[in-house]
Amino acid sequence: MRLTTLCYIEKDDSYLMLHRIVKKKDINKDKWIGIGGHFEEGESPEECLIREVKEETGLTLTSYRFRGIVTFVSDRWPPEYMCLYTADAFEGEMIPCSEGVLKWVSKKELLNLNLWEGDKVFLQLLAEEAPFFSLKLRYKGDTLVECILNGKEYKSNL
Amino acid sequence: MRLTTLCYIEKDDSYLMLHRIVKKKDINKDKWIGIGGHFEEGESPEECLIREVKEETGLTLTSYRFRGIVTFVSDRWPPEYMCLYTADAFEGEMIPCSEGVLKWVSKKELLNLNLWEGDKVFLQLLAEEAPFFSLKLRYKGDTLVECILNGKEYKSNL
Repeated sequence: MRLTTLCYIEKDDSYLMLHRIVKKKDINKDKWIGIGGHFEEGESPEECLIREVKEETGLTLTSYRFRGIVTFVSDRWPPEYMCLYTADAFEGEMIPCSEGVLKWVSKKELLNLNLWEGDKVFLQLLAEEAPFFSLKLRYKGDTLVECILNGKEYKSNL
Repeated sequence: MRLTTLCYIEKDDSYLMLHRIVKKKDINKDKWIGIGGHFEEGESPEECLIREVKEETGLTLTSYRFRGIVTFVSDRWPPEYMCLYTADAFEGEMIPCSEGVLKWVSKKELLNLNLWEGDKVFLQLLAEEAPFFSLKLRYKGDTLVECILNGKEYKSNL
């Protein structure tokens, strides 16, 4: 069982995205994702969030919102529970990230990136200002085969 | 790392409480708590919630709300992440619970029960209709030594 955070940091009309092109063995290889990582022993979701953003970007978050929990199940990896955040204020200077290339990407252009199918679903929920949600995504390989929002089957209009 | 759900099922002005007096070895021994338990492999929070409530009470929830996440750290047990729910509608007949004695307890009388200190904190947040929260509770033995709400130190007025 893996517990992680993921954060989309906002500036103007853009999100800070991470292009995962560095690690050779990476389940996110070549995908664009937000900023985050695994909980360390005894961390709360916020503590993990703030540490991961600091480590990967150099930035210190000063304002953030807990937007949802995503349950990932897959035929390839163990289950993952991901605490999803957005952040709209931070301090400090950005540093290069050891796990990929950081880039501010306009929200309008997000869907042109190489994204996981399920990420598009929760990015849309964020864009729609959905209240706190629990989303379950089931993958077979790279293909999204099931999507359950707050306990009910969900078909996004993507 | 342990992942659990806990649910306070409402009827009129009462919550369904479980008096944990059955198991000899139980970290909740003799305490009153809500209904819940550990995630099974790949369950979403809602799937765990509905299964645990069904197993422990015989009831099938038909309306529930995800109210917060509680991070427990302790000098005695591994960290636990608990998804906290309330529920206000259900179907079916109540059955005896193998883990303790079920009783409807008026919300006014809750604080007279033998409760964990930290449970009083989140029960108060539920009573105040706090928006979705992340609460970190640190225990030394049975004593609550730290309480952090949404990333900030919190002193409840209990």
